[in-house]
Amino acid sequence: MAFHDFIRDDAGWATLHRETLFEHPYLAVEQVRVYSPARPEPYDWTVCQRKAGVVVAAESLAGGFVLVRQERVAVRATLWEFPAGQIDQGGVHGWKDVLETGLRELQEEAGYEAGADAEVVPIHHFLSSPGFTDEHCYQIWVKGAAPSALGVNRDANERITEVRLFTPSELRAMVASGEIRDANTLCCLARLSALGMRW
Amino acid sequence: MAFHDFIRDDAGWATLHRETLFEHPYLAVEQVRVYSPARPEPYDWTVCQRKAGVVVAAESLAGGFVLVRQERVAVRATLWEFPAGQIDQGGVHGWKDVLETGLRELQEEAGYEAGADAEVVPIHHFLSSPGFTDEHCYQIWVKGAAPSALGVNRDANERITEVRLFTPSELRAMVASGEIRDANTLCCLARLSALGMRW
Repeated sequence: MAFHDFIRDDAGWATLHRETLFEHPYLAVEQVRVYSPARPEPYDWTVCQRKAGVVVAAESLAGGFVLVRQERVAVRATLWEFPAGQIDQGGVHGWKDVLETGLRELQEEAGYEAGADAEVVPIHHFLSSPGFTDEHCYQIWVKGAAPSALGVNRDANERITEVRLFTPSELRAMVASGEIRDANTLCCLARLSALGMRW
Repeated sequence: MAFHDFIRDDAGWATLHRETLFEHPYLAVEQVRVYSPARPEPYDWTVCQRKAGVVVAAESLAGGFVLVRQERVAVRATLWEFPAGQIDQGGVHGWKDVLETGLRELQEEAGYEAGADAEVVPIHHFLSSPGFTDEHCYQIWVKGAAPSALGVNRDANERITEVRLFTPSELRAMVASGEIRDANTLCCLARLSALGMRW
């Protein structure tokens, strides 16, 4: 997301001032002064900028959802999650780019692809922690994933140790117990519930 | 979360080196070199450190869940969310502290409290974006919230413009449409689904 507007938009937002406090390949920190819709006076906020992401809830033709088990240094844990990845800056012009990136992550991380009669459904996005970061993650639902002839092709930053299919009732137990605990997977499951998918 | 161990723990994690790249009242950025369970060689990662949070799914005695509408500068949007807040550093010694903070946020942000016969259920936590931050948010379910005689008491950093009860079916529609899109609320709803609460 790039916000260059110092003129109030229709909702009432405007950025009066912005200053980069920290820059790094994986995140940047900006101090901004904004007008917001609800306040007469501008106020200051600290925003951590991140690339957007995409997460893929892929239902296999064989039954069950594709999950990868991944080492997460920031929380010193190895977690079962839906396949996901970041979208290269400037690369998101619409759902077409998001779907391409999502399907590439599904193949590279998990070795699965959209099967011959698959339906690839763009769902929405979610915001991982809007109190401090602009990070948002697009959500895709692949109905009819199948093992890919290309196999997996993980980049050097991936820390994936396992791939497995889980049935909806296994997912339910893992969410209830807390074993599944990353926002990518939980937020997809919340959307799938709302869209009528039973798990 | 503080990780000071340079000796491998039982899971296989050890931190060989850590360097603070950026410090700020709301976040810090650290470069770490770790041993992980799955790799023979240590590797480097960038971790954004944040305080833990707590989010409260409060079901009113009158029916419906308590949501607050809040301005979120980082994403330039005003969102309907479950009440939530950060937990003061060093203040988390167990669920007792988390529940206290959660109930305080419920009262201060929304003007609700646990009613006379309320059940306050600690659920679990979720990780907002474990690829880059240690931020985790504890989840609480209050069955039987009631308006508080103390009213609301918002601090200067709150940007809450409205409080309302939403029925489970209203929540469902807002999740399906994407109107609800913060991880706090979506991840709570996923847990409630898994625990058998229909929404």
